[in-house]
Amino acid sequence: MSVKPTVLKLGGSVITNKAKTLTPSLPTIERLTKEISRANVSPLVLVHGGGSFGHPLAKRYAIKEGYRKGDASQVLGFCETHQAMVTLNKLVVDVLIQNNIPAVAVSPSSCVVTKSGRISTMMQELLKRLLKNGFVPVLFGDAVLDSDLGFTILSGDQLVAYLAVRLKAARIIMGIDVNGLFTGDPKVDSSEHLINHITLEELRRMLARIGESKVTDVTGGMLGKIAELMPAVEKGIPSLIVNATKPNNLYRALKGERTVGTLIERGEKTVVRKNQGKKI
Amino acid sequence: MSVKPTVLKLGGSVITNKAKTLTPSLPTIERLTKEISRANVSPLVLVHGGGSFGHPLAKRYAIKEGYRKGDASQVLGFCETHQAMVTLNKLVVDVLIQNNIPAVAVSPSSCVVTKSGRISTMMQELLKRLLKNGFVPVLFGDAVLDSDLGFTILSGDQLVAYLAVRLKAARIIMGIDVNGLFTGDPKVDSSEHLINHITLEELRRMLARIGESKVTDVTGGMLGKIAELMPAVEKGIPSLIVNATKPNNLYRALKGERTVGTLIERGEKTVVRKNQGKKI
Repeated sequence: MSVKPTVLKLGGSVITNKAKTLTPSLPTIERLTKEISRANVSPLVLVHGGGSFGHPLAKRYAIKEGYRKGDASQVLGFCETHQAMVTLNKLVVDVLIQNNIPAVAVSPSSCVVTKSGRISTMMQELLKRLLKNGFVPVLFGDAVLDSDLGFTILSGDQLVAYLAVRLKAARIIMGIDVNGLFTGDPKVDSSEHLINHITLEELRRMLARIGESKVTDVTGGMLGKIAELMPAVEKGIPSLIVNATKPNNLYRALKGERTVGTLIERGEKTVVRKNQGKKI
Repeated sequence: MSVKPTVLKLGGSVITNKAKTLTPSLPTIERLTKEISRANVSPLVLVHGGGSFGHPLAKRYAIKEGYRKGDASQVLGFCETHQAMVTLNKLVVDVLIQNNIPAVAVSPSSCVVTKSGRISTMMQELLKRLLKNGFVPVLFGDAVLDSDLGFTILSGDQLVAYLAVRLKAARIIMGIDVNGLFTGDPKVDSSEHLINHITLEELRRMLARIGESKVTDVTGGMLGKIAELMPAVEKGIPSLIVNATKPNNLYRALKGERTVGTLIERGEKTVVRKNQGKKI
């Protein structure tokens, strides 16, 4: 493809009701689809999270930790976890197609193998062909096979960074259920403020502090999420985190308009200058 | 894996109501699942057809014929066709899992690329790993990307033969809606009789006669279906065609018991002798 793709993540907490097992947020999926349709960005790769579809089952059967030899219930648990994700993916893709977006479900468990939890093999040819032909591949966090662990869970976040690097993406947009990265956890302390812009260097320092003190991630897990994006940011792919639960945020982000959120960039001066006032 | 897998096809005409668009035959899917569960064959690969899910949409949008450049409706038609197959596959896999069969949906469009309609690339590593870990991969005839045509339809029958060869299968069982290969079309002339056993050489002669005379396939399309299996039969993989609409036929075939049907074998005398009275 001639134009670099956008990799868009729709968080599991956005598109599902996390409090209720196997419950989608259909009105939100429909609203976000209309925002994607209006923004009309192409080429586009979509990745969504598991929310109340994938997480409870993955946890119950300890899928992430790998295969316990001879445990038939865990083997069936892998199947149930994957199937729950297929169910959510089908809901999302159905709505996209109904809105004339040429969405094609791509099951990570059908095209990815991991090694100790990290993607080692992926059939990239297929994704490149899909994009070349004008399709919007829709992937998701999934239960996948792992050459060391037997199987494991591949997070949507890891997938986003991997795809962005391999497909030479122009940018990553992460649509989640908070405004971005805060100095602390705003759900715990409302005085914590949003970080509008962070460089790779600053991010590394924040992560190192957490590493040294061995304290819990005070940003409510957000820093860990962002850490997954680092391989892409290192390659110069800017990543914007926006609150997709609020109408029009995703639309504005896709259009490259100013949005409340956190922009993560590699941070060399030239790169920052080049992107000023432009679509990220 | 140490034991050679069985590749089992469930015909689209068996698991769907072909007369009604997008209508599954759920009682049949449930009965066949119970037969598969009782037979308890492992390793097992399942492939199902499209029936009233895949065929009407594929035909409407001429997906098999390939991409007509710039036709956005056809691009969306590809998505709809694939999504209809995902819907049917989800129904099948749900029932399998409910019956404690560790079924994992594997979307051909996520792991196969064809060239002029024939499989050119497939992520086989994934299937081998699934089988090794005790899973039952469930694939299906699907809309897939094609390096010459843009996209096309990959038939479940082609997939069956390809998988059987690459996975070094012990045998192929084709569960369809007629008793097997007849001397003519039994739906047209009831005096036509069932061919219980046919060798590759005999099959080639039958196909050549059709080729020479350019007449329609008098076997009601069955010969064309069997022709797809030839690459596997050539490798010495016996293929048994049984009527899966009749209770217990599939069970008996899986158990290697005598069943009404057509057995296709490569036909060297040694091979025939070796298989007599044994599980095919």
